[in-house]
Amino acid sequence: MKIFQQSIQLREKRRGFHLITGEVLYALPQISEIKVGICQVFIQHTSASLTINENADPTVRKDFEMYFNKSVPENDPDYEHDYEGSDDMPAHLKASLLGSSVMIPIRNGKFALGIWQGIYLCEHRDHGGTRNLVVTAWGN
Amino acid sequence: MKIFQQSIQLREKRRGFHLITGEVLYALPQISEIKVGICQVFIQHTSASLTINENADPTVRKDFEMYFNKSVPENDPDYEHDYEGSDDMPAHLKASLLGSSVMIPIRNGKFALGIWQGIYLCEHRDHGGTRNLVVTAWGN
Amino acid sequence: MKIFQQSIQLREKRRGFHLITGEVLYALPQISEIKVGICQVFIQHTSASLTINENADPTVRKDFEMYFNKSVPENDPDYEHDYEGSDDMPAHLKASLLGSSVMIPIRNGKFALGIWQGIYLCEHRDHGGTRNLVVTAWGN
Repeated sequence: MKIFQQSIQLREKRRGFHLITGEVLYALPQISEIKVGICQVFIQHTSASLTINENADPTVRKDFEMYFNKSVPENDPDYEHDYEGSDDMPAHLKASLLGSSVMIPIRNGKFALGIWQGIYLCEHRDHGGTRNLVVTAWGN
Repeated sequence: MKIFQQSIQLREKRRGFHLITGEVLYALPQISEIKVGICQVFIQHTSASLTINENADPTVRKDFEMYFNKSVPENDPDYEHDYEGSDDMPAHLKASLLGSSVMIPIRNGKFALGIWQGIYLCEHRDHGGTRNLVVTAWGN
Repeated sequence: MKIFQQSIQLREKRRGFHLITGEVLYALPQISEIKVGICQVFIQHTSASLTINENADPTVRKDFEMYFNKSVPENDPDYEHDYEGSDDMPAHLKASLLGSSVMIPIRNGKFALGIWQGIYLCEHRDHGGTRNLVVTAWGN
């Protein structure tokens, strides 16, 4: 069983949901050497997150941003953690609702994703800066 | 270290939450050969999802359906992605809230689940059709 | 490739969000023997959960408790599963929103967490009792 790991830094993206499947595959070309395995993508931040969803129509990603802004409001007077900006505490909550990692099966050197699936970077802050990921893949 | 992987297709289930622990175990009998390991179950769709929750009282699964329908409404006029039916965009959102995979430790050839835990297939569409899973297990 | 697994029982914690990174590391000292790998932490319950979020300001964890109580209300008259107390059905829903496991990359014998990241035990019940985790780590 082999295991490969690579850190990557994504350039700053604007607040919203962004497809990054290609960037992940580019970062760890050894995925192509694995016939049966798993890849984990992990984000080392608490105000951005990762999820898997539709890779086609960009309005899906716009609706994600709209929905999560309604569902996790800014400026709730009950927030106590409010000194890092009105987008900060909602960003922490969204990050835990969506999660800090995704796990994708590998088959014959490729991601065994469904035809409509892609990896989203979910940037929950207005100015989140660069984001660091750790990509790990293992298998035979 | 061994690794096993199997694709399975689940028959169409009606919208709601369904226990599938038995179907997963049946699909990958080699789990019984692993003394210490992990099993991942992955769904290759963006409008259905997987989670782990109570395996006993069926009203828990009915309340899941009720809650997620309230929490992620259909027909929000702010949705832009609305041409695949009123259940489509909510299905994408629910899928990311719940997640596209579950990971279960294996001990002595069995899932090390708590006594009340089972795997749910979460069908978020009215007519989702068959659903494809990839089950991967590894360990010694 | 090596794999290690350890069950741990956490003492009862009060309802809310609690940092447990140290308890997890203490439970599985063999993590230090892994140069490149992954650690999974799994909770064997359906009314408590695990997530990764900010490890510093405790008001973040208070705001998590506030937000999830608003977002998943007790005493919704539409709940059918209500005979185990008003905190029970919301606890099941919160557990699936946050998830039953976290996965952390390992690099050079340590968790490759971001500087602000820690593991939260999310106790959703008023009197949840002790909680059992299974910690599994693998790699080279």
